[in-house]
Amino acid sequence: MTPVSQPISRFPVPELKDLPDDIRARILAVQEKSGFVPNVFLALAHRPDEFRAFFAYHDALMEKEGGLSKAEREMIVVATSGANECQYCVIAHGAILRIRAKNPLVADQVAINYRKADITPRQKAMLAFALKVSLQAQAIEESDFAALRAQGFSEDDAWDIAAIAAFFAMSNRIANVSSMRANPEFYTLGRLPKA
Amino acid sequence: MTPVSQPISRFPVPELKDLPDDIRARILAVQEKSGFVPNVFLALAHRPDEFRAFFAYHDALMEKEGGLSKAEREMIVVATSGANECQYCVIAHGAILRIRAKNPLVADQVAINYRKADITPRQKAMLAFALKVSLQAQAIEESDFAALRAQGFSEDDAWDIAAIAAFFAMSNRIANVSSMRANPEFYTLGRLPKA
Amino acid sequence: MTPVSQPISRFPVPELKDLPDDIRARILAVQEKSGFVPNVFLALAHRPDEFRAFFAYHDALMEKEGGLSKAEREMIVVATSGANECQYCVIAHGAILRIRAKNPLVADQVAINYRKADITPRQKAMLAFALKVSLQAQAIEESDFAALRAQGFSEDDAWDIAAIAAFFAMSNRIANVSSMRANPEFYTLGRLPKA
Amino acid sequence: MTPVSQPISRFPVPELKDLPDDIRARILAVQEKSGFVPNVFLALAHRPDEFRAFFAYHDALMEKEGGLSKAEREMIVVATSGANECQYCVIAHGAILRIRAKNPLVADQVAINYRKADITPRQKAMLAFALKVSLQAQAIEESDFAALRAQGFSEDDAWDIAAIAAFFAMSNRIANVSSMRANPEFYTLGRLPKA
Amino acid sequence: MTPVSQPISRFPVPELKDLPDDIRARILAVQEKSGFVPNVFLALAHRPDEFRAFFAYHDALMEKEGGLSKAEREMIVVATSGANECQYCVIAHGAILRIRAKNPLVADQVAINYRKADITPRQKAMLAFALKVSLQAQAIEESDFAALRAQGFSEDDAWDIAAIAAFFAMSNRIANVSSMRANPEFYTLGRLPKA
Amino acid sequence: MTPVSQPISRFPVPELKDLPDDIRARILAVQEKSGFVPNVFLALAHRPDEFRAFFAYHDALMEKEGGLSKAEREMIVVATSGANECQYCVIAHGAILRIRAKNPLVADQVAINYRKADITPRQKAMLAFALKVSLQAQAIEESDFAALRAQGFSEDDAWDIAAIAAFFAMSNRIANVSSMRANPEFYTLGRLPKA
Repeated sequence: MTPVSQPISRFPVPELKDLPDDIRARILAVQEKSGFVPNVFLALAHRPDEFRAFFAYHDALMEKEGGLSKAEREMIVVATSGANECQYCVIAHGAILRIRAKNPLVADQVAINYRKADITPRQKAMLAFALKVSLQAQAIEESDFAALRAQGFSEDDAWDIAAIAAFFAMSNRIANVSSMRANPEFYTLGRLPKA
Repeated sequence: MTPVSQPISRFPVPELKDLPDDIRARILAVQEKSGFVPNVFLALAHRPDEFRAFFAYHDALMEKEGGLSKAEREMIVVATSGANECQYCVIAHGAILRIRAKNPLVADQVAINYRKADITPRQKAMLAFALKVSLQAQAIEESDFAALRAQGFSEDDAWDIAAIAAFFAMSNRIANVSSMRANPEFYTLGRLPKA
Repeated sequence: MTPVSQPISRFPVPELKDLPDDIRARILAVQEKSGFVPNVFLALAHRPDEFRAFFAYHDALMEKEGGLSKAEREMIVVATSGANECQYCVIAHGAILRIRAKNPLVADQVAINYRKADITPRQKAMLAFALKVSLQAQAIEESDFAALRAQGFSEDDAWDIAAIAAFFAMSNRIANVSSMRANPEFYTLGRLPKA
Repeated sequence: MTPVSQPISRFPVPELKDLPDDIRARILAVQEKSGFVPNVFLALAHRPDEFRAFFAYHDALMEKEGGLSKAEREMIVVATSGANECQYCVIAHGAILRIRAKNPLVADQVAINYRKADITPRQKAMLAFALKVSLQAQAIEESDFAALRAQGFSEDDAWDIAAIAAFFAMSNRIANVSSMRANPEFYTLGRLPKA
Repeated sequence: MTPVSQPISRFPVPELKDLPDDIRARILAVQEKSGFVPNVFLALAHRPDEFRAFFAYHDALMEKEGGLSKAEREMIVVATSGANECQYCVIAHGAILRIRAKNPLVADQVAINYRKADITPRQKAMLAFALKVSLQAQAIEESDFAALRAQGFSEDDAWDIAAIAAFFAMSNRIANVSSMRANPEFYTLGRLPKA
Repeated sequence: MTPVSQPISRFPVPELKDLPDDIRARILAVQEKSGFVPNVFLALAHRPDEFRAFFAYHDALMEKEGGLSKAEREMIVVATSGANECQYCVIAHGAILRIRAKNPLVADQVAINYRKADITPRQKAMLAFALKVSLQAQAIEESDFAALRAQGFSEDDAWDIAAIAAFFAMSNRIANVSSMRANPEFYTLGRLPKA
């Protein structure tokens, strides 16, 4: 089967040299660290103000300390992005989840059906809440928060879970509308135990 | 019927004096301009980094120039927030829509069922696209973009419509999870023709 | 924004002088009492037998005494009509609800998301039942009645809630199919405290 | 298998002798004509005003002359009641449909999946419209009316189809909430060709 | 109303004489036993290997002994086929259910809304599980099995219920895609008490 | 993150030595060929007759020649299993798809959102049809077949697509109900180009 080649995004992707300095610097820093530029950086670059706000928001939610581990934050991304059928987010954050969890299986499991994943009851409660926020936030009620508390989550954790699910509700929609493509590198990252 | 009193948010709402300077300044500026502080500013203030990114993103999408008028941008907010059953967003942005459109009826119409609203075919096409992004972005395809082009929307306009719908997909979820309350002022703003 | 003018109904609207006497009399009585003729009376008038049955049914459910206050009956109408995206019913009965509840905020709250409205737990139970009747009556079971009883509702009250939800399931569909327009007067009625 | 016996309705069913004269008379007339009393008459009798309005409305829609045959009107009832999982309405009106259409197969076919029923393209268009009114009236638009016109339906016919679908949207909900039972007679009526 | 004649299947139906011997023999044996050839045998015959596997699977699930009676197995078929709007399966297996249950009413009741059927609480629990398998198997969890155990079902029974629901999830789709028609004989079988 | 260990199936898994000879032989043959025993063989083995019918059916659909390549058959499995949130089927058949298509990316793409996958328009039409069979077979109509024909698919191909989607509608439900686990081997198979 000869693969059908497609662009990174159906919207314009500017060249690096044409970008504002801060955005080019951020992209080069990511490339330095990861070895490649994740396409989301290129696909959002044609809108510098949105780019800046997007990544500021992303980092405020995903890089912070708190009751949720970084692997758990990625788990929320992968589970809700699976429910929203977002190829870019499942594949890219699936890779990050495998790496952060040091677990080559968990990302595919959580993306397809978290109820059957090799995760703890606490993590299942976290994902049940995240998916309700993602799919039916209007029906969230106090009993949903009680289910989190029963697993030891604080109010701050509840906000984090909800805010991550909400942020990727946005992100999934942008990626789907722009047909944002995941870099081939993401498909294999974290699949093999490090030597 | 005695109304049942409820807090602004089920999460903590810090006092103004305890906020970082830039956030307090922004809130005071809004109060100066509007005559009251919309509750979203207070409800997000317990998370300063998220607050900053949220409003930077909001302003990048809602305050910019472009093919969509400011009233049309608010129309997208109201229609998608209605579909997501978000009380805060429908009521607060409904007020802004009435003011920006100088039309006391359009916000309620669009919030309930845009197909029956007193708007142009072009605006109906815009809202049909926005609602598909909000409710079923995974199924957006080129024919959806073609329907926008047939009404004269540019590719940049398409991105704007999608990005606003996506941003409020996030915003609606945060407001619903936090039971964010709309200020009473919003209910009546823009309902009467100015003398 | 210049509003786009639309007719009261996409079906024929007869002139008053051409109507049967009893129907003209009813319409004139409403006009006398309200100061204007709500469009539903005009939109149904082309079918005199249906008109008579419709309003006889309506009055039997909405004007009767019983365990539900008149404001609560209107609350059921507004909440279920919101779920059915019926512009005429939300806007017209929203006005009546504001007046009957002497509460300028409750109608918009209930129309958008009753779970977040400033109402009592008893009223939330009433609306949860009404919405299940409206959206999924086939799945109503004895536990749903038990939830009503736990809030002090009688069997007669349960019938009333269900019958109102059912009647407006019909009414919402007729209004949506006929693109029935709400009179501009309804948008502002009851929004300001009486002097 | 020993059948489990259940009452006609989970709400009170008055005795004939306790009913208002006009209602008792109507019930006796039906019994005279049909040989038994369809349970809907008994299940609604505890609410005389609603009973009167219900049957007045029903007769105005189902017994009138017009572009739809009486069999076609019953077809609308059976198809929409199937979609709403209403046992009483499918079984009772299925019997009437078999009799009026002089066709022992059509009722079961239409109740389960009208797309596969032995009916004309014109009837399929009628049922497609009726089901959209029943399940998604908020999305009805002019193209739906155009599809009816293409099959020769008039505007008056369109109203009839919509009004019947809407009336049974109500009726289905009342029957489901009250667990209204179909009389055993209905199950076999019209299944065998008359000798 | 003149019925509209339609073929047994929209796919090819071979003649008996052109079939492999084992398939022709099976069909003749069914005809011998039932007095007619149920159309599913003819509609699948153009694919001999699939035909053989289909009926081997069917018999393994439907003809075996175990905690479920044969009538109960048919009840699962009828309830799930009703939810999947499969005309062939509801009508053909409805007939078998009437015969096996010696109950002329139960098939129509279960096909339309099992919650209102004259069946035992144990049978309702069985059908609730079967319908969740049919409509939302991804969300089945241990509490669903516990509800079965509470009614005395074994683990083996749980597998049987699930496997029957799953098999007819397949069967319903094949019948709907091929517009498979039910034989007229099925509509009346088992409706009258045997003399 | 320490993974949480779980069994192959929540139902009994017999030991190889206790199985009927033909089933043990089939399992050993698969092990010989693949280097491991895919868990589906073990999870179904407690029901020998169902096991035999299941794999006979599977092979009749997946191993045959015809207008669909073997990779395309697997594509149908992966896309519909993704929609049904079936972990075992997405992961196991995803591996087979990567191998048969000699494409390390296509399985994840198709499992998440086939509309954004690097596949041909013909393959997208094939998957659109397969997903309609999987999710809404009752609404399949002649226009769906016409869309296949427009891409060069024969009637026989249409049956194949539908039958594969239907078979995995069954298979997905069995796997979800039994919490069938995918072997770790499947996660990495076919991800790296062969040296």
